[in-house]
Amino acid sequence: MGEAIEVPKQAKAIVYDNPGTVSTKVVTVDVPEPGPGDVLINLTHSGVCHSDYGIMTNTWKGLPFPTQPGQVGGHEGVGKVVKLGAGAELSGIKVGDRVGIKWVSYACGSCEPCNEGAEGCCPKQRVSGYYSPGTFQQYLTGPASYVTPIPDDLPSDAAAPLLCAGLTIYSALKRSRAKPGNWVIISGAGGGLGHIGVQLASRGLGHRVIGIDHGSKKDIVLESGAEHFIDITQFADDDVKASKLAAHVQSLTGGTGAHAIIVCAAANGAYAQAPFLLRANGVLVCVGMPEHEPKPIASAFPAFLVAKQISIVGSAVGTKRESIEVMEFASRGVIKVHLRTEKMEALTGVFQEMERGELKGRVVIDLS
Amino acid sequence: MGEAIEVPKQAKAIVYDNPGTVSTKVVTVDVPEPGPGDVLINLTHSGVCHSDYGIMTNTWKGLPFPTQPGQVGGHEGVGKVVKLGAGAELSGIKVGDRVGIKWVSYACGSCEPCNEGAEGCCPKQRVSGYYSPGTFQQYLTGPASYVTPIPDDLPSDAAAPLLCAGLTIYSALKRSRAKPGNWVIISGAGGGLGHIGVQLASRGLGHRVIGIDHGSKKDIVLESGAEHFIDITQFADDDVKASKLAAHVQSLTGGTGAHAIIVCAAANGAYAQAPFLLRANGVLVCVGMPEHEPKPIASAFPAFLVAKQISIVGSAVGTKRESIEVMEFASRGVIKVHLRTEKMEALTGVFQEMERGELKGRVVIDLS
Amino acid sequence: MGEAIEVPKQAKAIVYDNPGTVSTKVVTVDVPEPGPGDVLINLTHSGVCHSDYGIMTNTWKGLPFPTQPGQVGGHEGVGKVVKLGAGAELSGIKVGDRVGIKWVSYACGSCEPCNEGAEGCCPKQRVSGYYSPGTFQQYLTGPASYVTPIPDDLPSDAAAPLLCAGLTIYSALKRSRAKPGNWVIISGAGGGLGHIGVQLASRGLGHRVIGIDHGSKKDIVLESGAEHFIDITQFADDDVKASKLAAHVQSLTGGTGAHAIIVCAAANGAYAQAPFLLRANGVLVCVGMPEHEPKPIASAFPAFLVAKQISIVGSAVGTKRESIEVMEFASRGVIKVHLRTEKMEALTGVFQEMERGELKGRVVIDLS
Amino acid sequence: MGEAIEVPKQAKAIVYDNPGTVSTKVVTVDVPEPGPGDVLINLTHSGVCHSDYGIMTNTWKGLPFPTQPGQVGGHEGVGKVVKLGAGAELSGIKVGDRVGIKWVSYACGSCEPCNEGAEGCCPKQRVSGYYSPGTFQQYLTGPASYVTPIPDDLPSDAAAPLLCAGLTIYSALKRSRAKPGNWVIISGAGGGLGHIGVQLASRGLGHRVIGIDHGSKKDIVLESGAEHFIDITQFADDDVKASKLAAHVQSLTGGTGAHAIIVCAAANGAYAQAPFLLRANGVLVCVGMPEHEPKPIASAFPAFLVAKQISIVGSAVGTKRESIEVMEFASRGVIKVHLRTEKMEALTGVFQEMERGELKGRVVIDLS
Repeated sequence: MGEAIEVPKQAKAIVYDNPGTVSTKVVTVDVPEPGPGDVLINLTHSGVCHSDYGIMTNTWKGLPFPTQPGQVGGHEGVGKVVKLGAGAELSGIKVGDRVGIKWVSYACGSCEPCNEGAEGCCPKQRVSGYYSPGTFQQYLTGPASYVTPIPDDLPSDAAAPLLCAGLTIYSALKRSRAKPGNWVIISGAGGGLGHIGVQLASRGLGHRVIGIDHGSKKDIVLESGAEHFIDITQFADDDVKASKLAAHVQSLTGGTGAHAIIVCAAANGAYAQAPFLLRANGVLVCVGMPEHEPKPIASAFPAFLVAKQISIVGSAVGTKRESIEVMEFASRGVIKVHLRTEKMEALTGVFQEMERGELKGRVVIDLS
Repeated sequence: MGEAIEVPKQAKAIVYDNPGTVSTKVVTVDVPEPGPGDVLINLTHSGVCHSDYGIMTNTWKGLPFPTQPGQVGGHEGVGKVVKLGAGAELSGIKVGDRVGIKWVSYACGSCEPCNEGAEGCCPKQRVSGYYSPGTFQQYLTGPASYVTPIPDDLPSDAAAPLLCAGLTIYSALKRSRAKPGNWVIISGAGGGLGHIGVQLASRGLGHRVIGIDHGSKKDIVLESGAEHFIDITQFADDDVKASKLAAHVQSLTGGTGAHAIIVCAAANGAYAQAPFLLRANGVLVCVGMPEHEPKPIASAFPAFLVAKQISIVGSAVGTKRESIEVMEFASRGVIKVHLRTEKMEALTGVFQEMERGELKGRVVIDLS
Repeated sequence: MGEAIEVPKQAKAIVYDNPGTVSTKVVTVDVPEPGPGDVLINLTHSGVCHSDYGIMTNTWKGLPFPTQPGQVGGHEGVGKVVKLGAGAELSGIKVGDRVGIKWVSYACGSCEPCNEGAEGCCPKQRVSGYYSPGTFQQYLTGPASYVTPIPDDLPSDAAAPLLCAGLTIYSALKRSRAKPGNWVIISGAGGGLGHIGVQLASRGLGHRVIGIDHGSKKDIVLESGAEHFIDITQFADDDVKASKLAAHVQSLTGGTGAHAIIVCAAANGAYAQAPFLLRANGVLVCVGMPEHEPKPIASAFPAFLVAKQISIVGSAVGTKRESIEVMEFASRGVIKVHLRTEKMEALTGVFQEMERGELKGRVVIDLS
Repeated sequence: MGEAIEVPKQAKAIVYDNPGTVSTKVVTVDVPEPGPGDVLINLTHSGVCHSDYGIMTNTWKGLPFPTQPGQVGGHEGVGKVVKLGAGAELSGIKVGDRVGIKWVSYACGSCEPCNEGAEGCCPKQRVSGYYSPGTFQQYLTGPASYVTPIPDDLPSDAAAPLLCAGLTIYSALKRSRAKPGNWVIISGAGGGLGHIGVQLASRGLGHRVIGIDHGSKKDIVLESGAEHFIDITQFADDDVKASKLAAHVQSLTGGTGAHAIIVCAAANGAYAQAPFLLRANGVLVCVGMPEHEPKPIASAFPAFLVAKQISIVGSAVGTKRESIEVMEFASRGVIKVHLRTEKMEALTGVFQEMERGELKGRVVIDLS
């Protein structure tokens, strides 16, 4: 069970001191005791995700309640187990193990969604950093049976963004049912999720990848393993249905379009185009959630979906099992997240960069 | 190879003499010779499908070209093989065998869609009764390798409607990925496809079925094996999102909604409601194609599909293999199509009934 | 969380007082306290399984250690939750709920086998009634997240045998990958697992069932829903390879053999024959474990398996999720176990009947 | 349909002039006319497979009849279509297209095995080079709908061995159900099938590969992409059950064994060991067929298969669709077959090398 590790009474945490605005504050909080079945984790790193921004600013329409002052955000946390709650040893987790906390920080494991690979739909789930303490702090408890073990050869900063961004895009790729050798388009291929997706799809899963994004993302998309890059700005004003974009995709894929498209871009237009880029029996996986005037997918006409046997599939985060698989891919070198590390005090500035659309790659907060 | 069967030089056929209107005419045509790999079939029965009406009247927006005068319609034909073209004997089909012609009367068998269970997306497919001779006639050729064998104990009139209606709904049920014991809703449960679907789902596939339709269809839906019937007129003016219909479905399914819904109803409203009747990971299969002011599925918001991991799947006809399986279910008594038989001269009247919305069950034309 | 229920300090249990012999004794034991995450269950019924006999008598070669005196056996237990351990309320289980204990009474939920539908291969599993307290007693603890909820309309005595026999055969049927309409043979169709399997396969899963067993089991097999019964004694001395049995099965299945066979019979001969009863791509599922001079499957020649693309699949118990599905089938009336109820003091006699091969159907001990 | 290509009346073929011995002879034969639905192919290359040796020498026990003098062998043929039989144009194949002939040179496409991905089990199949003319000749007919199109950028000599060796191992890998990131062992990894399998598995399908073979094959196995090579001669005398080999495999795979093992080695011992190298739920795929004193798989005890939920799966050749996928992998550079080219007159010598076990890589006969 590992040696005992000394735990302080208090530690540092970053709170949203004025939800609705871009504002965070480093404060001192009491270190919690792990409950039955829980472990106490000394977090050293937490990724910063666009969802954290939406929660802090109360701009994400999907959230049922406004965020309260004092909320500790964050949901991509990595650290070392320092204490076991009653019964937690049954899980096999030991003091000293490195583990990760995910967006879904607790799922019941018993309900139908949990048993059907849809833990993000568990009605008893807790969300890290929203009405439940998040990972922007030094000490946090989590269920021994639901935290994600981190492989020894994977650094903690590299692991953090995989707990949400990596997991979400991996799960989406699996839900596409694309097979090795199939053409997969990633729309928003240069973004946080997108560039991990390109790497996983091309180097891990055997897909042939076409990345779509703004021209400035060309290098990161091609370096990540895409066979082709499409600069969406060259096709933006196109008529959706009989589009040059669709014709271009067909020319790249042997005449018939891609087997699957993963839409990470949170844009109505990206969704409207997507089905036209697919071949018969193709699958569109929804990941990005348009926040500005969200609309139904404009091309989702039943007659069109029937004629080409198109599937449209919503994919939410992913399972604990999938998070373990993502870590394995990363520890083998298949995934290399573009990231930079910042101190706890820098978080407000990071969110400001995010707001201005200037953030490149993923930021990981060093909590040590 | 069976004994030789005498074939006349000429035979009767029903043509659309004035496409764009409801009008058919019985004429005399030459009996064709079977080409290489083809068989000549002496048809005795053909089902009448709503798609035939759309082709005849040029009201179906999905068709690329207007129907021409002299077109022989029909795509649910059953008859006896009377002659083999060169090489057709390799298929194992013999003179005297009963076989059926489907909506897709020829598929290449070599392309990716053909090999992925999407023969209805084969770019070389021929459609029976639309720019290719249909089954409203006494003699027709078809590819030996693609006609559907009819089991000995299944009467030809009972088999005919299974070649399109039965096949389409069976394939849709399979594409729903619903498992035995799962709740499946059929929207439009009392219609031609719907009532076959209720029978197949409940008696053949082990599903628990909820049928939705107008109140007048209650008896046929419950007799077909549905556990529950919902009279949609009782819920019609409801707000879609927070609907009483969704609450009612949840109460019938243990609190969480159905695993799958097959929308046979060709109505925008039926599609808008459907996703709200599903549990997490649920699947909506599109079959009906709204013809009057078709719209995108009004509830297909990416964020909603993501949150519940909903899939929307288009399903087009079905494969030859599935048509064989449908025949097996029917020969075992799992399916009993509600049908009435009419003479060739009565077809115009049948289409008029269809136009007035008065047609109950399926009509099969006796071609003998 | 339900009202508090009074729990006695001591209660009755049946122990194996002399392992290696057929001998049980009713004794008084202390009622345990539920640990973190556990619930305390007041058991009212426990099924008696042939594995219990093997454990008691130390005749089951698969067990690593000899059973110790004082072992409480049993692994099909149903009762009412009377107390929650720390943290157990998170699972949603409440005091007063009826729940069941399975052969695998604890699985970690975190390892690869647990996440791949193979909880019976979890390296941390505990087995009820073997080096872990079993269900032949009035009070037992179990993990809140792993006990099986019992539906309200399913009596406890009817539920008990489903926790091992029902679950095992259901899981085996699923691992056969047989589809609705497929032919499934159950070898040992009249036994405890077999007759439940015939019911599930024919009435729940849409299969067409052929039951094989000794002639005396004909009635129970056909009443359970088999389309055909084969009296194995009529074929027993047959040459395996070119057998009359295989020819007979082919004649019943349209000429090609069954899609799947589930061998519940614990007999080398049943396994030797099984592959010859399958069509191309057929699946043999192993359930029964021959104890007398166990041998490799005599027909498992690589060249034969290759030529017909046969699969041989081992299936061990089943998952918690599958146990919930079995309960749903039972509460709908798909399964009706043949059982009789006995008092705690009668258990030795029951095992003696079992030893003499005279036991018909399942025995359930009334623990109340 | 391409321009007409002149076809000679006669051409060269290699026959087995004295079946039962290693002897071939180049003779002149009439060029056949393509029948209905067939194409005439001017073959330029044919691979030489160990099965050809077995057919020529009548040493393969799986064959029902002895080979007759004058048989033209070979089943990995590539060439150019020079003439279309009646109706063959429907397939889309044109004069001038390069196509390949496989072991199964004709399958009906209509039967259940054909429709379930088991064309090698089609009861009407024809086998190229055994009681049907083979590919060791300059002109051969084949069904337009069943020949395999060769991609433009794949040389004919490189394509030939993929039509049997490549297809067989690819299909076996698919039947293993191993997923990207899973550990796959290939037993016989340095042989004709094995080294293609290592390449496909590691570079095409995302698996982590362990190759097992004799030490002399180490280089080709590691160059083909295996992460680990095991020299089987270091473990040969080991006790199968508690073997050092199994312990070694466990140490390489994180402690639990491989997800799948493909046994290409035609050796009873390889099969006996294989199940012990798998983790729970693991899959053993049978490809190699022991010819010398074939035995049942010595470790296929039902109780063992049950306890670990092991599957044993026979895999025969593969489907036309899979052959197209193999060609796609090859045209992308995933597969590079080790081959050397020989003249028609050299075939007897090639078989003599094969007999002496001296053949390295694949030999392709240049037929031009």
